[in-house]
Amino acid sequence: MILDKVNSPDDLKNLGLNELNVLANEIRELIVKKVNTIGGHFGPNLGIIETTIAMHYVFNSPIDKFIFDVSHQCYTHKILTGRKDGYTNPDNYLKYSGFTAPQESEHDLFTIGHTSTSVSLATGVAKARDLKGEKYNVVALIGDGSLSGGEAFEGLDNASTLDSNIIIIVNDNDMSIAENQGGLYNNLKLLRDTNGQAELNYFKTLGFNYSFVDDGNNIEKMIRALKSIKDTNKPTVLHIVTEKGHGCKPAVDNKEIFHWIAPNILDENGNMREIKPSVNTYNSITKEYILHKAKEDKKFILIGASTPGVFEFDKEFRAKLGKQYTDVGIAEEHAIAYSSALAKQGARPLFPVMSSFIQRTYDQLSQDLCLNKSPLAMLVFWGGISSADCTHLCIFDIPLISNIPNMVYLAPTNKEEYLKMLDWGVNQTEHPVAIRVPSVPLKSAGVEDTTDYSILNKFKLVSEGEKVAIIGLGSFFGLAEKVKKALQEKFGINSTLINPRFITGVDEELLNDLKRTHKLVITLEDGVLDGGFGEKISRFYSSSDIKVLNYGAKKEFPDRVPIDELYTRYRLKPELICEDVQKLL
Amino acid sequence: MILDKVNSPDDLKNLGLNELNVLANEIRELIVKKVNTIGGHFGPNLGIIETTIAMHYVFNSPIDKFIFDVSHQCYTHKILTGRKDGYTNPDNYLKYSGFTAPQESEHDLFTIGHTSTSVSLATGVAKARDLKGEKYNVVALIGDGSLSGGEAFEGLDNASTLDSNIIIIVNDNDMSIAENQGGLYNNLKLLRDTNGQAELNYFKTLGFNYSFVDDGNNIEKMIRALKSIKDTNKPTVLHIVTEKGHGCKPAVDNKEIFHWIAPNILDENGNMREIKPSVNTYNSITKEYILHKAKEDKKFILIGASTPGVFEFDKEFRAKLGKQYTDVGIAEEHAIAYSSALAKQGARPLFPVMSSFIQRTYDQLSQDLCLNKSPLAMLVFWGGISSADCTHLCIFDIPLISNIPNMVYLAPTNKEEYLKMLDWGVNQTEHPVAIRVPSVPLKSAGVEDTTDYSILNKFKLVSEGEKVAIIGLGSFFGLAEKVKKALQEKFGINSTLINPRFITGVDEELLNDLKRTHKLVITLEDGVLDGGFGEKISRFYSSSDIKVLNYGAKKEFPDRVPIDELYTRYRLKPELICEDVQKLL
Repeated sequence: MILDKVNSPDDLKNLGLNELNVLANEIRELIVKKVNTIGGHFGPNLGIIETTIAMHYVFNSPIDKFIFDVSHQCYTHKILTGRKDGYTNPDNYLKYSGFTAPQESEHDLFTIGHTSTSVSLATGVAKARDLKGEKYNVVALIGDGSLSGGEAFEGLDNASTLDSNIIIIVNDNDMSIAENQGGLYNNLKLLRDTNGQAELNYFKTLGFNYSFVDDGNNIEKMIRALKSIKDTNKPTVLHIVTEKGHGCKPAVDNKEIFHWIAPNILDENGNMREIKPSVNTYNSITKEYILHKAKEDKKFILIGASTPGVFEFDKEFRAKLGKQYTDVGIAEEHAIAYSSALAKQGARPLFPVMSSFIQRTYDQLSQDLCLNKSPLAMLVFWGGISSADCTHLCIFDIPLISNIPNMVYLAPTNKEEYLKMLDWGVNQTEHPVAIRVPSVPLKSAGVEDTTDYSILNKFKLVSEGEKVAIIGLGSFFGLAEKVKKALQEKFGINSTLINPRFITGVDEELLNDLKRTHKLVITLEDGVLDGGFGEKISRFYSSSDIKVLNYGAKKEFPDRVPIDELYTRYRLKPELICEDVQKLL
Repeated sequence: MILDKVNSPDDLKNLGLNELNVLANEIRELIVKKVNTIGGHFGPNLGIIETTIAMHYVFNSPIDKFIFDVSHQCYTHKILTGRKDGYTNPDNYLKYSGFTAPQESEHDLFTIGHTSTSVSLATGVAKARDLKGEKYNVVALIGDGSLSGGEAFEGLDNASTLDSNIIIIVNDNDMSIAENQGGLYNNLKLLRDTNGQAELNYFKTLGFNYSFVDDGNNIEKMIRALKSIKDTNKPTVLHIVTEKGHGCKPAVDNKEIFHWIAPNILDENGNMREIKPSVNTYNSITKEYILHKAKEDKKFILIGASTPGVFEFDKEFRAKLGKQYTDVGIAEEHAIAYSSALAKQGARPLFPVMSSFIQRTYDQLSQDLCLNKSPLAMLVFWGGISSADCTHLCIFDIPLISNIPNMVYLAPTNKEEYLKMLDWGVNQTEHPVAIRVPSVPLKSAGVEDTTDYSILNKFKLVSEGEKVAIIGLGSFFGLAEKVKKALQEKFGINSTLINPRFITGVDEELLNDLKRTHKLVITLEDGVLDGGFGEKISRFYSSSDIKVLNYGAKKEFPDRVPIDELYTRYRLKPELICEDVQKLL
């Protein structure tokens, strides 16, 4: 194998073009095998192998600095920068993160996982270089999809004013996670169709020098192009055309599905296994509801911000919605303002979003939405403690959303509550409503939920006991049930069980009532404690004799920590909670 | 007066061109007089009078919908839509908000005050119209400066894909609040210089139909242009050139100073009064520090996001910094990522920002900055409860910033602490540091602060007493001193006084120590309680016998409520706090 000879980018520079091409194939094989084994970003990595090799061939990392947007396409970069053991040896498959990580290598500048940040970061690196009087190349690699995020525009607008070296490689594979959305993409198409020659050029309007490569999967062409702009002293965009999933037919034929894959999507022969949509999940019942509602009410509209896969909104599903679906691009800020206006003007919008990505839109939630009290319904998916990468944690949505005035944030605990809240949220006209979709398997209560959610902040008293009351929020209601059982078994305490359902307010009447016969209230929330739900309960009781124990995640960025370890760390286990209770009673 | 005949937009349609021009002058006179009396946005309103008249002449508001970006330029719109009494009668000068406000008029669609949102909102309005099968024009008016915000790009990128009517009037006065910053502005200049004919056209790259008016202060030209695009069924940009401050020489000559003015900037003869920079304020000592530091350390750099006036960073001051100052445009997201990279690469960036605008950048604070532990220093200005407009509240920065892992958020209480924290923040290399600049007059402690702030979360025990401990955060330390005095006088309690200084963590040792001789802890913070500092103290003590009283703002959007009324509402007065204490002890 050629790869045996490559332990650092320096080793590349001794290879001939043929060897580089062989190397690309070796790397492709490793990535296909590894990602098909443990899951991960598939198409984006296969599409950028040749370009990454050319980058390391032409430039001198880590003296020259590479910044990968989202950095989900950094696998080849990792293989070439001393981390190939994470790809060649299955025992090491989990050794390195799927994103750039400075603690792994001096070739990684930043921990990155959210989109559209690379140009801003690169501009800062370039400016620091200039302030320090140093000389090197700063190279950002950003996908065409990521250009739809506002931060990318802000970065480009500022980068182009640098009177010095910065190189932005725009990796145009004519795909976001799904199809690209937005007027900009017609301009990219025009540039592709004219071999970069069209006068009308987005990057030139922002002031960049511009060049074009029609085949970014051709190492020779890429080397030539990069050499021609290396050491430029002008902000420069190199627009390259690559093929997402290059070299793997199923991935090329199914670009959206192969953006990120679960393990074993390919069979032994390298063919794609059939993917069946999930049944009896929160995703499946959400889709059913949406199709039903869209048919019944032509003012209903589903808004997406380029992550349809998270919710299993596949092509067929989207096609059924027609004009009742808008994908706005990777543009959560716009999504909120746009949806707020839709709601205000009498349409019935629904905006589903992943907890980690709602972070991109605090000001719009506050100003565009809640200040205007627009009756938008939002669904927050994947909220909760997990073993995720530190860049995709979903534990901060409660502090982010719930401390904004006028917002109604709901936490259902079962199928019927969820559907009732969803229907109420979509049809009511009074409040911005967000629903935290449970991140636990779908569970039916067996009876319809008849709650009127327009009566805000009314907690549900599930079973009345004494001494100890357990408030189990959303996904952690199941844990609350277990704690109740453990308290009964260990100490004979018949505790009170409460399903609060509302995150954004406290049920003062019920909480005051507890004071008569209870000494301790336990709160359980599947998210960070700081700024969260439990602290509101602590504040409520802080001047009373009731004691409170708050359970949730610590304020930190855990990185791929096994969930059981996190539960132990945060004492989110019935036996640990019983220990704490014992000390207090 | 022509204006006497104009009580609604309909009345405009009966006027001839000469009358419209007279009307413009009448309105100009009213705006100059009112704004010079009570303060407000001056230049932006004078520049857009003729265009606003033409808009109401050509379109039929409220059937046709107008959305004003930031809406700081809406005074003429208000005068023409039934609210002229707020401009003609000095007794009514405070009757209407300085921004669009749906509760005032059906001609105002949204409560708006932050930048770059109009295109997104307009797109939502247009899409709702299409879903409902209605027909009308949707018109957004956005300034050239606001185009630098990422949300504006996201909105344009999506708006251009609407297969129906939307009109974006780009009001190009070649100014942001200060000078425009960013590569885009060279393209706008090219378009101005070529009368809109240049092939290279930012708006066309995004897919818009485009037309150009060289003089947006000419009612006749504006009427003609608007008539030609009225009822278009294609997304259309109308790029108009206006003069900021039009018709008022001092405002035209000093565009930045006259963007927003305090009362009485003009004397009886309409000449500009001399503005003296403040002395002995947090602004003045910040500027002194910056100039000193920039001279001493060429790696130091000041970052701005287009609001230099907030910090009194005037032209002369900016010029002194040269390449050690970057204004990134109205682009807080980029500002954080850019600054994070600068800090990570060994430069020493300082980013001052207004509390209300830090809201535009939660995800960048979390991902680009804190996850990377970049040692950026930030200054958060104007944080605190105020009688501000509901769109510019500064009470949410503590929940927003302080619940992010790795962040160190500091609250100085006097000049010496502030300068020490500032110097430490700028020079240290371990943490993202934010400092909440006190919103009270500068006060000297008289002695140098020798604290080592690298020892995190160490509260300062200012005076040791018993029974009651008062924790007064930042700007509210003065209130804490008053409460201490009142407790002594009313109940003879010698209470303990604590200056926490750190917002982002609790001093467990000190707080535990209090348990021995105290029964009650009072927290005072100049911001919203929900998700804030006090709740952390409540959580800390929630399982102990210590009682806690948290004081701060309620979770709401107060709109121009007198501050004394808010202090009473929130019980932020020594006598009210004493009442609460009495009930507990």
